[in-house]
Amino acid sequence: MEHTASVASTPKVLPYYVAFSQLLGLTVVAMTGAWLGLYRGGIAWESALQFNVHPLCMVTGLVFLQGDALLVYRVFRNEAKRTTKILHGLLHVCAFVIALVGLVAVFDYHKKKGYADLYSLHSWCGTLVFVLYFVQWLVGFSFFLFPGASFSLRNRYRPQHVFFGATIFLLSVGTALLGLKEALLFKLGTKYSMFEPEGVLANVLGVLLACFAVAVLYILTRRDWKRPPQAEEQALSMDFKTLTEGDSPSSQ
Amino acid sequence: MEHTASVASTPKVLPYYVAFSQLLGLTVVAMTGAWLGLYRGGIAWESALQFNVHPLCMVTGLVFLQGDALLVYRVFRNEAKRTTKILHGLLHVCAFVIALVGLVAVFDYHKKKGYADLYSLHSWCGTLVFVLYFVQWLVGFSFFLFPGASFSLRNRYRPQHVFFGATIFLLSVGTALLGLKEALLFKLGTKYSMFEPEGVLANVLGVLLACFAVAVLYILTRRDWKRPPQAEEQALSMDFKTLTEGDSPSSQ
Repeated sequence: MEHTASVASTPKVLPYYVAFSQLLGLTVVAMTGAWLGLYRGGIAWESALQFNVHPLCMVTGLVFLQGDALLVYRVFRNEAKRTTKILHGLLHVCAFVIALVGLVAVFDYHKKKGYADLYSLHSWCGTLVFVLYFVQWLVGFSFFLFPGASFSLRNRYRPQHVFFGATIFLLSVGTALLGLKEALLFKLGTKYSMFEPEGVLANVLGVLLACFAVAVLYILTRRDWKRPPQAEEQALSMDFKTLTEGDSPSSQ
Repeated sequence: MEHTASVASTPKVLPYYVAFSQLLGLTVVAMTGAWLGLYRGGIAWESALQFNVHPLCMVTGLVFLQGDALLVYRVFRNEAKRTTKILHGLLHVCAFVIALVGLVAVFDYHKKKGYADLYSLHSWCGTLVFVLYFVQWLVGFSFFLFPGASFSLRNRYRPQHVFFGATIFLLSVGTALLGLKEALLFKLGTKYSMFEPEGVLANVLGVLLACFAVAVLYILTRRDWKRPPQAEEQALSMDFKTLTEGDSPSSQ
């Protein structure tokens, strides 16, 4: 039972990994802004610049904030579970709202310009990811926060919630990479092969996006960094086991 | 100790999930062939068709076979560990060789046509993935097969090997999606938005590639599907613990 020993203590290197992931995440958001500012004329809701709201919102919401929402249980591993859970849900709400603004921006821009919608692989993946994200949030909210499912149902659903949470995050990053590539090829065309500064900057941004995903996934999946069960949760789990299995806690 | 109960038995639904993943994987390889045959003139080593060797080899090697190499420990979960390990290593060798042919094809094609190399995000990610894959294989081989590291070193390295194995597989699928998108945009350009049959087929292929990755990841990460330790491995692990911790096996 390695876990019990680590209750109330934080693994020594975890903060460094978290700091590194945050540095990557913030760099990715800043570089997206820099790319749009330097090579795409900046951001505005009106005019042709409305399109640029889309990449910035998606990277901020569905990449950076979604990644951070997943890390909450590692960063605040010794806080009360309910507080951590509320923060996890709230970060996902922020990510969702920002992503929604990004989606409205691109659909509105397409409409004004008379462009077709939902024809590309990026848009297909994006739609799929956004719907899955919304469903995951709704199911997660109703199982773990309100109205809340029974202890045994929650326990059965938890691994699925964790798996699909990480999967949706990875799909979001993959979709962002597809979008970046699309934006580059539409504008640069064959000039892309001449190592244009915009192309190089966007390639670096793409690689950093992938690195952020790997960093979040590493922190999330490292076994000894998982959130240790708190004293009151352990007691509850013991009581439940006693009730359902007719076992005395001492027999564990 | 849930694991002990599952030794020598296979979880009921696991074969269905594996079969589904194989159906997805084979569909993806067949669809790549169909796409190249129907819309790109087929495959040949000489002539302009040499380029087409690249996507087919990469999807077969670094997506389908790499994914299957990861699943070996779940599919043959009750076989001797050494046999499973050799199969895992061999599948990775096949994947590597096929991918190498795919890489030679594209570099040779670029050289003959006088095209620039390594300028796109797809090529940057691809190079990174291929180097990581080679290093992972070399380190894995020397730790687990020949010459083989000490029991404690292997135990410490195993989680890293598993994490980076899954990560490299996911990055391979992401890189394949970027390549697919590149091939589509270079050929179709603005016709892509008119729902050309080739665009729709390639979009479906892209979504199926992502589904294959998710299916492999699900089978790989489900806790109760992990390979149970065999009797002789458990005994070895006990002996080792006794030696290093000065603990009697009965105290566990």
